Amino acid sequence: MIDPREFIRNKRDRRTHEPETIREFIAAYLRKEVHDYQVSAWLMAAFLNGLDAEETDALTHSLLHSGRVFDWSGLGRPSADKHSTGGVGDKISLMLAPLVAACGVLVPMVSGRGLGHTGGTLDKLEAIPGFRTTLPPERMRVQLDQLGVVMVGQGPDLAPADGLLYALRDVTSTVEFEPFIVSSIVSKKIAEGARAIAYDVKCGSGAFMKTPEQARSLAKRLVRTSRALGANAAALITDMTWPLGGAVGNALEVREACETLHGRGPADTRELTIELAALMLRLAGAAPSDADGRVMATKALDDGRAWEVFLRMVEAQGGDAAILERPDRLHPAPVISMVPAERDGVVAGCDCFAVGELVVGIGGGRRAKEDSIDPSVGLVVLRQPGDRVRRGEPLAELHLAGPDPDAVARAAACFVVAEEGLARGSTVLELIEG
Amino acid sequence: MIDPREFIRNKRDRRTHEPETIREFIAAYLRKEVHDYQVSAWLMAAFLNGLDAEETDALTHSLLHSGRVFDWSGLGRPSADKHSTGGVGDKISLMLAPLVAACGVLVPMVSGRGLGHTGGTLDKLEAIPGFRTTLPPERMRVQLDQLGVVMVGQGPDLAPADGLLYALRDVTSTVEFEPFIVSSIVSKKIAEGARAIAYDVKCGSGAFMKTPEQARSLAKRLVRTSRALGANAAALITDMTWPLGGAVGNALEVREACETLHGRGPADTRELTIELAALMLRLAGAAPSDADGRVMATKALDDGRAWEVFLRMVEAQGGDAAILERPDRLHPAPVISMVPAERDGVVAGCDCFAVGELVVGIGGGRRAKEDSIDPSVGLVVLRQPGDRVRRGEPLAELHLAGPDPDAVARAAACFVVAEEGLARGSTVLELIEG
Repeated sequence: MIDPREFIRNKRDRRTHEPETIREFIAAYLRKEVHDYQVSAWLMAAFLNGLDAEETDALTHSLLHSGRVFDWSGLGRPSADKHSTGGVGDKISLMLAPLVAACGVLVPMVSGRGLGHTGGTLDKLEAIPGFRTTLPPERMRVQLDQLGVVMVGQGPDLAPADGLLYALRDVTSTVEFEPFIVSSIVSKKIAEGARAIAYDVKCGSGAFMKTPEQARSLAKRLVRTSRALGANAAALITDMTWPLGGAVGNALEVREACETLHGRGPADTRELTIELAALMLRLAGAAPSDADGRVMATKALDDGRAWEVFLRMVEAQGGDAAILERPDRLHPAPVISMVPAERDGVVAGCDCFAVGELVVGIGGGRRAKEDSIDPSVGLVVLRQPGDRVRRGEPLAELHLAGPDPDAVARAAACFVVAEEGLARGSTVLELIEG
Repeated sequence: MIDPREFIRNKRDRRTHEPETIREFIAAYLRKEVHDYQVSAWLMAAFLNGLDAEETDALTHSLLHSGRVFDWSGLGRPSADKHSTGGVGDKISLMLAPLVAACGVLVPMVSGRGLGHTGGTLDKLEAIPGFRTTLPPERMRVQLDQLGVVMVGQGPDLAPADGLLYALRDVTSTVEFEPFIVSSIVSKKIAEGARAIAYDVKCGSGAFMKTPEQARSLAKRLVRTSRALGANAAALITDMTWPLGGAVGNALEVREACETLHGRGPADTRELTIELAALMLRLAGAAPSDADGRVMATKALDDGRAWEVFLRMVEAQGGDAAILERPDRLHPAPVISMVPAERDGVVAGCDCFAVGELVVGIGGGRRAKEDSIDPSVGLVVLRQPGDRVRRGEPLAELHLAGPDPDAVARAAACFVVAEEGLARGSTVLELIEG
């Protein structure tokens, strides 16, 4: 029997926990022998005094085994998944999951909802009329076997201890702590049964990690802990100083995903989709190298196989696949306003965080869990960094539920037009292997 | 409305709380708008990142005003009280309260029970058959007016927030933190209505504060915070490297108190009683100096007035005053065993903490709140440091519920007999005025 007071005192006094004691503490919490107020005291002690890599691994292990752990190995194919730390306009999962499945690797993707200024894959999928994001496990297995991909939300039986801990962290100001973030992400990814995980760690004004150092540190811990728990893993650090692709907003992002799955779409969206697919294929053992993976993914994207898998997945999960053939009919916004450049010059930058907040503010995201989302609203970026513009020319379109001059003004203020400005380089900044 | 997350985050990030926010946080906790798990996260953040003097004062103020605050100023006399941080054999309150009352100063003393290896005044008082330690407020007022003294336990309406916080601290390993200790002590002392407080901060092996630095720091904060809340205060730092007086154990300590109130008793018990009385009289404005206070207290002790007040208080609170005239009849233990010196030599020291633990172990104290106490058991020290003894000669008497050779052996091991040993100096080590 663990003594919770001694366990808390150990971290309070900067001692390192034996991995077994972390597992006992979490197990006792789930049995209600350890109370919320004791866990929250420990959360604060850990936040302030730190958890090392072994402690993080042990915490992740505890969260993982607090609930159901899927195992798809009986289906006889490798499996892989991707996790993004969240950005503005990040609709990559929508293309990536069917694309990797089209290349012969199972993608049992469990996604979340929007958080803060960022969107969530579940919210985007639900912009497709009828799409169901909860499936019973047996349905998941059948669909995975037949189509190679499912995209669902986290059921209550997946890492339930993480849900409890997250709720406590949220109300005790202990959210922004790398070991907690890592254990929360990795436990859920491993629980869904993927044996290879590619992490997309966003970096910049639109990301939670503002600096390359923060992003690199998180990426290394994610990879290390995933490997410690038996999954092959690597991470890309990617640029989030400019909204990803053109669209920000749920239906608008689904439209952009359809474009991209047809081999078109913005260059950065296409590039990042192919890079992450290549990494997943290599980590899953389906491609001998990233270069081979890139070739496989590009082919499956351009010859329409990825699109085909996407349509079949939407149908299988109850969604209206027909409307995706005419995506401009998907939740058109009542009002589309142009966002004008405020001066002559060169597009030099964007306050990506402000764009995310703006879209939440016009109804495209949630301030509280209970809020409902308007799938039609959002912003479409029309120009890229380095583009020369004249005062009054449109920088972006704002899709609105009704006329909103204030939102237009705020959108204009998100963009920097200056004397000079550089074109963007690659979206992928760095590969972290561990 | 306070945002508890922001409040917790401020301390997490080492910021200093505005006093008003501490009061709002505690008030919201009492209204159940802030939850246990949020308070415990804050307790740990404060424990690790510190609370300064102003924050400690504000916390104390919040605890104080969470319940009833007595005001005896209508009785037209000054009031004073003493608080000891707890030691082994510390029965000073039993003599001190009636002594100071005999000198014309009101003593509305609220005491606690034994904690850890130390005894509690309430437990000692309850060794007197019939003595009631709970009185309704109106009875307290009448008795204070007539006798100048009441000795009771803490009612549930006195600083209730302190009770809630203490319970949380106990289960979250956030007890041993000076600002919490200070706020807990001072809020209760001020709430009982004393306008002058003498603190007896024990220092040494038998005390919670093991070093003079710890004791001095605590003494300064106690005095400072008491003054910030409107009470005159000072502290004595006193020696706790040897059990105070001769007796350790509830009935045995009442017997020693009776001796001392008759002008006899061990020298250290008498000295500390007079010193603390002098300080209380001076702080209350009843004596112009400590020297004058000493003269007043010595007189009231030696002419029997203090004893008379003690007897009348015991009667007024339902106790058997008659038995106190023959205190050897108060709970005689079934077995008295001599504790022999293990070698020839000079008495050189005592593991005072071990003596306290030993007395708890033979039934004289509590391991858990629910435990009942045997008032008859305890230890009486027969020799003093510097005394020469021969092997086998008695160092102490052990009063037991039945034969217990193991306890006798453990008692013997508490004492150090060496080649050399110094006699004790004064029990009072230092006066802290703030």
